[in-house]
Amino acid sequence: MRIHIRNTTILTMNQEEEPFIGDIVIHNDQIEHVIRTDRQSIESIIPPLTGDDVQVIDGTGKVTMPGLINAHQHTPMNLLKGFSDDLKLMDWLEKKMFPAEARMTPEDIYWGSQLSMAEMIRSGTTTFADMYMHMNQIAQAVDEVGMRASLTRGLVFHDDDQGVRIREAIELVESWHGQAKGRITTMFGPHAPYTCPPEPLKEVMHLAKQYDLPIHIHLAETKEEVITMRERYQQTPTQYLYELGLFEQLHVMLAHSVHLTKRDIQYLKGMRGGVIHNPVSNLKLGCGIAPITEMKQQGITVGLGTDGAGSATTLDMFQEIKAATWLQKLDYGDPTVLPAYQSLQMATIESAKLLAIDHETGSLEAGKKADMILIDLNRPHLQPVHNIVSLLAYSVNGADVDTTIVNGKILMQNRQLLTLDEQEVMRQGNRRAKRIVEGI
Amino acid sequence: MRIHIRNTTILTMNQEEEPFIGDIVIHNDQIEHVIRTDRQSIESIIPPLTGDDVQVIDGTGKVTMPGLINAHQHTPMNLLKGFSDDLKLMDWLEKKMFPAEARMTPEDIYWGSQLSMAEMIRSGTTTFADMYMHMNQIAQAVDEVGMRASLTRGLVFHDDDQGVRIREAIELVESWHGQAKGRITTMFGPHAPYTCPPEPLKEVMHLAKQYDLPIHIHLAETKEEVITMRERYQQTPTQYLYELGLFEQLHVMLAHSVHLTKRDIQYLKGMRGGVIHNPVSNLKLGCGIAPITEMKQQGITVGLGTDGAGSATTLDMFQEIKAATWLQKLDYGDPTVLPAYQSLQMATIESAKLLAIDHETGSLEAGKKADMILIDLNRPHLQPVHNIVSLLAYSVNGADVDTTIVNGKILMQNRQLLTLDEQEVMRQGNRRAKRIVEGI
Repeated sequence: MRIHIRNTTILTMNQEEEPFIGDIVIHNDQIEHVIRTDRQSIESIIPPLTGDDVQVIDGTGKVTMPGLINAHQHTPMNLLKGFSDDLKLMDWLEKKMFPAEARMTPEDIYWGSQLSMAEMIRSGTTTFADMYMHMNQIAQAVDEVGMRASLTRGLVFHDDDQGVRIREAIELVESWHGQAKGRITTMFGPHAPYTCPPEPLKEVMHLAKQYDLPIHIHLAETKEEVITMRERYQQTPTQYLYELGLFEQLHVMLAHSVHLTKRDIQYLKGMRGGVIHNPVSNLKLGCGIAPITEMKQQGITVGLGTDGAGSATTLDMFQEIKAATWLQKLDYGDPTVLPAYQSLQMATIESAKLLAIDHETGSLEAGKKADMILIDLNRPHLQPVHNIVSLLAYSVNGADVDTTIVNGKILMQNRQLLTLDEQEVMRQGNRRAKRIVEGI
Repeated sequence: MRIHIRNTTILTMNQEEEPFIGDIVIHNDQIEHVIRTDRQSIESIIPPLTGDDVQVIDGTGKVTMPGLINAHQHTPMNLLKGFSDDLKLMDWLEKKMFPAEARMTPEDIYWGSQLSMAEMIRSGTTTFADMYMHMNQIAQAVDEVGMRASLTRGLVFHDDDQGVRIREAIELVESWHGQAKGRITTMFGPHAPYTCPPEPLKEVMHLAKQYDLPIHIHLAETKEEVITMRERYQQTPTQYLYELGLFEQLHVMLAHSVHLTKRDIQYLKGMRGGVIHNPVSNLKLGCGIAPITEMKQQGITVGLGTDGAGSATTLDMFQEIKAATWLQKLDYGDPTVLPAYQSLQMATIESAKLLAIDHETGSLEAGKKADMILIDLNRPHLQPVHNIVSLLAYSVNGADVDTTIVNGKILMQNRQLLTLDEQEVMRQGNRRAKRIVEGI
């Protein structure tokens, strides 16, 4: 089975090069060719593709780029989107989110995660990293819908659960790592420094080493967390993780990382993995601006994520791309900081590195998995075309994505979702959401 | 001629009330009825509407709200969108924008402004305030396309133009004020404190009084402007305008107003008109965060605009709504600041007040002009519906607008533009833009 995308504008994201006109050939789940047709004809390289096993997509007037990678998500929280905006963070979390989440059944998780997947596919995301509970349901949904995902059972240790959460985390890894034709990978997910005391955190680190898997953890999202950690351990949250040896041998994804000192950034220097920036969530909850320009200057990989829709209220990664570059320009009072191409890198190849799947996805190269999106430029807000990279970073929004392909399979074409029943997902989502929040 | 919007979720924006289910009846250019059908049946209020002169729109699953009002725009700059991003502001302005603008012909202005109108209608804007040159072309385009607009000839006084610009400003006012079935109003537009010395500025103020029209002016967009004004006049830009008496008798729209001291805000207290916030442009050019919460606390009206697409790179007012509330939450470290309803007010009724047309538009009330939009909620990113006001402020984007009505005329329905030839506008825009920037 082959897909032949013809005469499209290609942005590979594997080096800072101008987009070019060309063709892409997908063979089964892989990219077979990325061909620059303004230099040579495709016929000189491969025989003309015809026949029943070839699907041709006309890419004229469209940009083809790697699918976006949302490196930090809590997909079922989409059921709580818009339920409790404009509240203080702790009121939001403790009075609204926690009670609502406690009511979520495994079936709610299944449908809530599908609702997020519908939104993500529609806005050009092909891969996401998820940390939540009832992960078996989410894995099942990922398997059915066809996205790529890195799944993590969130682990908190504020009560004695008789080891239930840890066992679920291990079961997720053992049942699902490498499954769904290789689209699912897993990590271990200690929730955050302030919810994970040293002993259980060491236990999780030991598990990660044993299974040779990365760690996905929240870090320094709020000022309150910094104060709590200082009172409890006389350390910053980053220092706490550093002293426990987290950054020594393990690949670690640090979500948020808003409140880091210069010394904290030094602790991260040379780490495997890196930081996931969540600018919209950080803005909406009034958390602050993560010092990602400084981190990048220190060689730390910085990817991009939306956080759960409960806070960010949208899963459109193109909005995160804009917000990321806006915030750095604001922070430095300098419009040259974090230029367009770099913010696109954060949403593609840099996020792929964080998920430890950059050998498979994050750029368009022969041999990589076929994860890509086509964006239709034939719209007033995307004309004239002076600079495609600028348009993608500053003017495109998720609704401009025309086609979404993951692992060589078309999940959306002409804005029609092909692998999930969108109306049923919305109906289920709305009905379940109403039940969950009733009386809260 | 009547339009009957049935069974829609109505957000009137004329008081902080819950949206309700109801019907709206438009008679010619006016709103005839806004009816709450969950309390009473429409038949008990008006006879059933049928016949050839009635168009029925099914509003089921859609929100109907006032059209958005973009209170600060330079529409033809859409031709320069994405042409020069990620540059220092003065490099952007002097090396790119000024040379390109100098090449624009009246026909370029005509097509460039139509390109912006296509984008605005598509993203739910019904009214805009424009400051540019060759305003006759823009007025012509507004007349043809059917939007509502406040038009202003921008006036700078860095060279002796033999009074040409002033004469053009007067001609615009005399030819177009009240034209296009009343959809066009005009203002006088001295560009900014740093481009308008006291004597010519006084002359413009005199004209504004003579014609009884408002003033549209930029204020304190950058730190550099503050420094320049201090060097030149030992005053802040705001103080400079205050001392000249600008705020005493005239209705004034102040665009940007980023760099204002506490004393500057006191100068504005009690003014007629108010401030236009342009958060995306201010972010993208690294200008800073305008102190709009403080201004609002002092009773100053604050509306919302995109600025030209040359800087903001998008004219989606829903993005400005998000950015406005995000920035205040960030600035105060507090997610309760500038809640959803207030940011929607800024984009509707507050902007209408700035344009001095709040008696005609900005809210849905019987007797006002019929300017409104329908937003389709049947999309994964807008489900579940916990709180419609939250969804509109934080989750909706321009592409969710289904129908746009101005002055009782449908300009877009089912996302099809009805009053302009979109493909021709894009073709003209692209061709002209290429010529304008060639070699710059």
